[in-house]
Amino acid sequence: MLESAIMHEPESKYCYAIDTNKIALRIRIAKDDNPKISVIYGGKYSYSLEQKTMNMERAYEDRLFAYYTCVLKLTDCRLVYIFEIDDHGEKYYYSEDGLSKEFDFNLSFYNCFQYSYINECDIIKTIDWMKSAVFYQIFVDRFAIGNLNKDMSYINMDWKGKPTPKSFAGGDLRGIINRLQYLKNLGINAIYLTPIFKSISNHKYDISDYLNIDEAFGNKEDLHELINKAHSLGIRIVLDAVFNHCSENIMQFQDVLAKGRSSKYYDWFIITNDNPLDYECFAACKYMPKLNTSNKEVQSFLMNVGTYWIKEFDIDGWRLDVSDEVSHNFWRKFREKIKECKRDAVLIGENWHDANVYLRGDQYDSIMNYAFTKAALDFYAFGSLNPLSMAHKLNGVLMRNSDNVNHMMLNLLDCHDTLRFYTEVKKNENKLISALALLFMYPGAPCVYYGTEVPLEGGYDPDSRRCIDWKHINDNLRVSSIISKLAEIKKIVKAGNVRIYSKDNLLIIDRFDDENTYRLLINNNSYSIKYKEVNIKCSNLYQDGYILGDGFVIDKIS
Amino acid sequence: MLESAIMHEPESKYCYAIDTNKIALRIRIAKDDNPKISVIYGGKYSYSLEQKTMNMERAYEDRLFAYYTCVLKLTDCRLVYIFEIDDHGEKYYYSEDGLSKEFDFNLSFYNCFQYSYINECDIIKTIDWMKSAVFYQIFVDRFAIGNLNKDMSYINMDWKGKPTPKSFAGGDLRGIINRLQYLKNLGINAIYLTPIFKSISNHKYDISDYLNIDEAFGNKEDLHELINKAHSLGIRIVLDAVFNHCSENIMQFQDVLAKGRSSKYYDWFIITNDNPLDYECFAACKYMPKLNTSNKEVQSFLMNVGTYWIKEFDIDGWRLDVSDEVSHNFWRKFREKIKECKRDAVLIGENWHDANVYLRGDQYDSIMNYAFTKAALDFYAFGSLNPLSMAHKLNGVLMRNSDNVNHMMLNLLDCHDTLRFYTEVKKNENKLISALALLFMYPGAPCVYYGTEVPLEGGYDPDSRRCIDWKHINDNLRVSSIISKLAEIKKIVKAGNVRIYSKDNLLIIDRFDDENTYRLLINNNSYSIKYKEVNIKCSNLYQDGYILGDGFVIDKIS
Repeated sequence: MLESAIMHEPESKYCYAIDTNKIALRIRIAKDDNPKISVIYGGKYSYSLEQKTMNMERAYEDRLFAYYTCVLKLTDCRLVYIFEIDDHGEKYYYSEDGLSKEFDFNLSFYNCFQYSYINECDIIKTIDWMKSAVFYQIFVDRFAIGNLNKDMSYINMDWKGKPTPKSFAGGDLRGIINRLQYLKNLGINAIYLTPIFKSISNHKYDISDYLNIDEAFGNKEDLHELINKAHSLGIRIVLDAVFNHCSENIMQFQDVLAKGRSSKYYDWFIITNDNPLDYECFAACKYMPKLNTSNKEVQSFLMNVGTYWIKEFDIDGWRLDVSDEVSHNFWRKFREKIKECKRDAVLIGENWHDANVYLRGDQYDSIMNYAFTKAALDFYAFGSLNPLSMAHKLNGVLMRNSDNVNHMMLNLLDCHDTLRFYTEVKKNENKLISALALLFMYPGAPCVYYGTEVPLEGGYDPDSRRCIDWKHINDNLRVSSIISKLAEIKKIVKAGNVRIYSKDNLLIIDRFDDENTYRLLINNNSYSIKYKEVNIKCSNLYQDGYILGDGFVIDKIS
Repeated sequence: MLESAIMHEPESKYCYAIDTNKIALRIRIAKDDNPKISVIYGGKYSYSLEQKTMNMERAYEDRLFAYYTCVLKLTDCRLVYIFEIDDHGEKYYYSEDGLSKEFDFNLSFYNCFQYSYINECDIIKTIDWMKSAVFYQIFVDRFAIGNLNKDMSYINMDWKGKPTPKSFAGGDLRGIINRLQYLKNLGINAIYLTPIFKSISNHKYDISDYLNIDEAFGNKEDLHELINKAHSLGIRIVLDAVFNHCSENIMQFQDVLAKGRSSKYYDWFIITNDNPLDYECFAACKYMPKLNTSNKEVQSFLMNVGTYWIKEFDIDGWRLDVSDEVSHNFWRKFREKIKECKRDAVLIGENWHDANVYLRGDQYDSIMNYAFTKAALDFYAFGSLNPLSMAHKLNGVLMRNSDNVNHMMLNLLDCHDTLRFYTEVKKNENKLISALALLFMYPGAPCVYYGTEVPLEGGYDPDSRRCIDWKHINDNLRVSSIISKLAEIKKIVKAGNVRIYSKDNLLIIDRFDDENTYRLLINNNSYSIKYKEVNIKCSNLYQDGYILGDGFVIDKIS
């Protein structure tokens, strides 16, 4: 037993409440160790007298570690526990004091692990609709022009052209309304829109008025219609909340420019010098001054924005731009206000790194899962992971957060801030299709970047923001028909259990619950691998009992 | 290099802001490894182009691990970093992806560590007065009778007798007022009082009126006088907040008893059955129903209690009873309200276990450090730790939290909920004195349980709650004179750095800052150990260049 590899922490991803009488446990050990592990548990005030035991299952392996899990059903919501580790006959206890050969249950109050009390308000709640959500991200200016009567004078690029940072192509809310049925047919049931509020840029991440829609995109009536029609089709709408920074054109910043220290908005920003004025901003973009989210007035202002669009328009959640630079203190209050307004509104942070510190039930529900993105790139585009190391990587990403959070993750292959995945895999359509199968079968909500179904190509921003050519949308239906099938399967698989491993040089993901077991087998090699089918629900490049190179199979095993 | 022992986590005790331009870093490795470690850091948006390097120092060792630390001064409050580990010539990088021989700074945005942005409101603030605080805990009924004119009919035990669970001895606020100068002389500058609010018990942990003082203890005038006099002597007063549960006699619970589901206070409690009524309570004590701190009305009620005694009486903080069973959601709101009222009011949780999840700047400032208590018992009473393993244990306890939190810990040898330490060490006065030296030199605020200076003996509750015999208070001044000297030194040492280690079978604690280095040397063996003094400030059993068995020395090294 390699003691220094063992990891467990109460009230964390290693021990979290699922319900007021259910707690999930994990313990991490060195991958090369292979003991039997069980948890010895009981009530806080009766533990020295009475203990129960439950076996744990070895459920995940990453590069270095193995993770054992179990779920305890409790009659007392004050849980006290230690682990018993049976290493091929050698028995150990693992407590807050580490590994020991003996454990004194009479003094356990000093060194047991505990989940002191499951308070309802602290439980991480999984949003039900997120379990079967299939997202589609739309960069509004580039998706579709719907309103042909509007003033088109701002449009400065050809719809089929290559965008520059300053291009306006003319996409709008009406364009999305017109394509809702198209998206429904594709299997989409949730849309994430990049910002739609008043802003002079094409991306609108520099907002000058958070309570109005940019004229180029439409008006509030259009948004009402979009949301009503979407909802009637079973499609949810998530908007983009840019709260880290705003546009220099916003009234409050203009007031600071005009009045300096005497402006009542002076503390809304983080001013680092008065004369000449200098201030914190997004990256090095001085036209996007950073909002001081430690300031209570700013907090109130932004909470009002967050709740306004839910109350008035019934939106289904917020994607939170540059969320990792916004204060935790703000997110906690924001979450509470949003959930009071609409309990199942989702909050999805833009965090590129391990964001567990934001995902413990008090801040957001989910993040854009760039760790998954990077793994998919390493596996499909950069060739730096083989099926086994990919399985380890994908398990490692799961182990960053609790299961209830994992099932709300927004998983993506690409977005407006990356190169198009199709371009990364050098326009190998089969690799894109295989990666989509992985995207849909990995725990969490798949998010398809608009145009992936075409498939659209594109390098780094602004090239990844090209327009969809609707005239030729039916020229190649290979990708879109696969997406539709994957979406159907995702809606069955939902938030089931997962096991990720490699066998016969295949990357394999099992998704299972009490009713079904679906198995995804990915052959990311150039050669064919024999596979005896059971009940195939979706596949690409599967022929005569072989998964060909770059092919995959989703099989219903039971 | 044992990779699976390496641990680092951004925005945690391994990486935390000290100020808007200062971040402290730790990295953990296996104790048996001894590499050079440095941090390669830079700004979030310039990291791929430009990196700085800082060496880290091996500062702490526990049983399994060594911890390297450094403090970065930043010009950009968006920190990005990885570690460089030079293992005797073999160079590695350690990033979010683990250990690697190469690191691509161009793709670092995917797998570097980061502290995205230091928002002022998220920084864990050290309360300045806690750095030199010396606490004294008073169990009010047993400390001193001051008001001789009150109705004494409730008193049912002899002042010199052995208490039972139902004993009333007559101690009161006036008794404390009368002894403030005594406590000042002892070196005390902060008092923690067990509950003083309306309650029928002697301990008053079952409160029926949170806004009034129990008559047996005095009235609001007495509390005003106590606090004013204490403040004029430089002594702070911390009260006990019992928010997990209340008395069955409280109006709100009586209303539930009377009206059942139709009571407007029904959701103030956690009712598990209506008929016959059953409900969650403290432990198995049905006379102490648990308050539902998920409920917003309960939250408001308790926040009002918390702020009332600060606004009206200027108390200096709250000790939080059974704080680990109260919701995190409540503590976050409570903290914000309290700090708005009085920025340097301290919040000290009663958590017997690793409480890091509460100590990240959003909930409380400190806990009663029972892990320290247990270590002291293992070392002095149970003989289960030698000087080296004690050093490891003490370092391990420090590594549970960030340094700014460690300097606010309430360290204790005993309290009303444990046996008296003096009894645990079988009335060996020298061991008690040595343990006190350790208590005062360990980072954090020492808390002396009333009567330790006598020293009082006592087994488990209620025996640990005997009365101080003031008539014989001067019979033995050995312990009290040591406490006074230790208190003087603590006020110099403050929140300085610490190194804890063992040499020559001594347990050694160095406390140092830019000005002074104080060294505590503890001989917890039965034999004498040679020690060449420099400038001894306090000692016990030090003779002719030898620290005798059970002796200690505090030496001013520089």
